[in-house]
Amino acid sequence: MDDEPRTARARQRREQILDAASICFARYGFHGASVAQISKQACMSPGHIYHFFDNKEAIVGGIVERMAARWLELLEPYPQDREVLDTVTERATHALAERTRPDFAGLWLEVLAETARNATVQRAVGNADERIRAAVTEQVSFIRDMLGVQSDTPLSAIVEVVLALYEGLSNRSVINPAFDRGQIREVVLSATHAILIA
Amino acid sequence: MDDEPRTARARQRREQILDAASICFARYGFHGASVAQISKQACMSPGHIYHFFDNKEAIVGGIVERMAARWLELLEPYPQDREVLDTVTERATHALAERTRPDFAGLWLEVLAETARNATVQRAVGNADERIRAAVTEQVSFIRDMLGVQSDTPLSAIVEVVLALYEGLSNRSVINPAFDRGQIREVVLSATHAILIA
Repeated sequence: MDDEPRTARARQRREQILDAASICFARYGFHGASVAQISKQACMSPGHIYHFFDNKEAIVGGIVERMAARWLELLEPYPQDREVLDTVTERATHALAERTRPDFAGLWLEVLAETARNATVQRAVGNADERIRAAVTEQVSFIRDMLGVQSDTPLSAIVEVVLALYEGLSNRSVINPAFDRGQIREVVLSATHAILIA
Repeated sequence: MDDEPRTARARQRREQILDAASICFARYGFHGASVAQISKQACMSPGHIYHFFDNKEAIVGGIVERMAARWLELLEPYPQDREVLDTVTERATHALAERTRPDFAGLWLEVLAETARNATVQRAVGNADERIRAAVTEQVSFIRDMLGVQSDTPLSAIVEVVLALYEGLSNRSVINPAFDRGQIREVVLSATHAILIA
């Protein structure tokens, strides 16, 4: 067996564990979910899981990395040949949909609850967030240049508040059973625009 | 012993349990915290705790009720004899501070993680949120009238997005170790204003 398929298979196994753990953490919570449950959900032996991850915290770290990679993909550089506000609208609509997907929101809130009390998870989330903030900062800077915004508001404040808005949409989708993402879309876009030019 | 002090004492004991449980849930998570730990933290016997609350879910319900009562206090009717935007600024600043208090944010994220998977907690949070939404809707309606806003955006969408922004500030205060509420205040105010007049 050469290295290539082994690596691909290992990567696939790793993904399989993260998928299974995501389901278990969302369903039972980080502390409620055991490696035994995760291994059952992943159809793998616990030994196999420990081959890839030292412990549950490392699995959470893997989940956070995967989420961050997904957000960073959505944050690719803005196309130069298109109205900047059209791209803002498109990406904001996409982010609204992603952040309020039930399988995302529940898992993310579980990760954040653990972030507030666990230094290892805090480090993983903090590192991922640093990269996301860097990518968003670059985009916000580009958007403000393109729109000719004249204001000396620190970019870091703009980025923090725009991220807060989309964070909060996840919470609201969990809190309000009647949450209706279609109904709020226009207001989310107005708010996003106002923050970007603040 | 007449009824009055007994009721006051019972109320005080109940508060004492909610305080202790808030500390334990924030520290160990809802599933990680036991009634034994809560009773130790509250300096009460487990029997005493079960006298007031049937189980941990009922304690979470009590915590959510108490948080809601606190938010509703902050949502008292707007004074008529004052510039409406001054009151918006004052309350937004207050909400920013409250939502990003470390002891609040961690506990609230733990409650939300449980909300996403537990129908009993979902009901408690949903009921509290319904009352908060009603109060915020009344205020948003008043503010828009005072500012002469001409727009047929549904009030429920405005309310949902303004709540999302403040929800998200809690998340951000947990995610970013360098979160600086003073630095973002002006942008939060701009965003709040933009949402209110959307």
